Amino acid sequence: MDNDRETGSLLDPKYDASGLITAVCTAPDGTVLMLAHMNAEALQATLDTGEATFWSRSRGRLWKKGETSGHVLKVIEARIDCDQDAVWLKVEPRGPACHTGAPSCFYRIIEDGKLVRG
Amino acid sequence: MDNDRETGSLLDPKYDASGLITAVCTAPDGTVLMLAHMNAEALQATLDTGEATFWSRSRGRLWKKGETSGHVLKVIEARIDCDQDAVWLKVEPRGPACHTGAPSCFYRIIEDGKLVRG
Repeated sequence: MDNDRETGSLLDPKYDASGLITAVCTAPDGTVLMLAHMNAEALQATLDTGEATFWSRSRGRLWKKGETSGHVLKVIEARIDCDQDAVWLKVEPRGPACHTGAPSCFYRIIEDGKLVRG
Repeated sequence: MDNDRETGSLLDPKYDASGLITAVCTAPDGTVLMLAHMNAEALQATLDTGEATFWSRSRGRLWKKGETSGHVLKVIEARIDCDQDAVWLKVEPRGPACHTGAPSCFYRIIEDGKLVRG
């Protein structure tokens, strides 16, 4: 088995100094819903349960997205990038992904240095 | 003008302790091409030039994607998330986005704890 991190088949995430990698979640239509962080436990929970689970840096604990709101993100496919420090989750959202109630956290476009909803 | 970071129209990125935010780049078909980091200078360069520019943590310098390869990422739209610590760039890639030559850095699926190309 080729265990090289870039070319191999070994899942060997490159966690940063805080023990985290970045996860990006996209909806079936390609919308980027949110970015969040995962430690090893969060990644394992995501893969085991099929529901996106992150590490909340603000709360300092494991955080299953939608654990209180019910707006979970059902994982359709999980991918990892070349240097294994980022994960891409294709998900089916069970409600708004953003805590503001917006479908996606990226509800503002940067236009001429200002933010515009759209 | 509403200057609240979540609801406002003021571009006010929340840089981390290293002065960085995360940027995710997607192709027109919704493929996530790559994740990288931006400092204030990289974000400004991206917005000014319309070509994705990052901060290379490994090289410790500004890095226009494709500066040597020619595989630049032409920015179609730039969005920012609710807490302004992540940017989503919709781009038109002028070649493979990954340094391995793959169209996207996310060329491997996590399946049963192993990585599979696809």
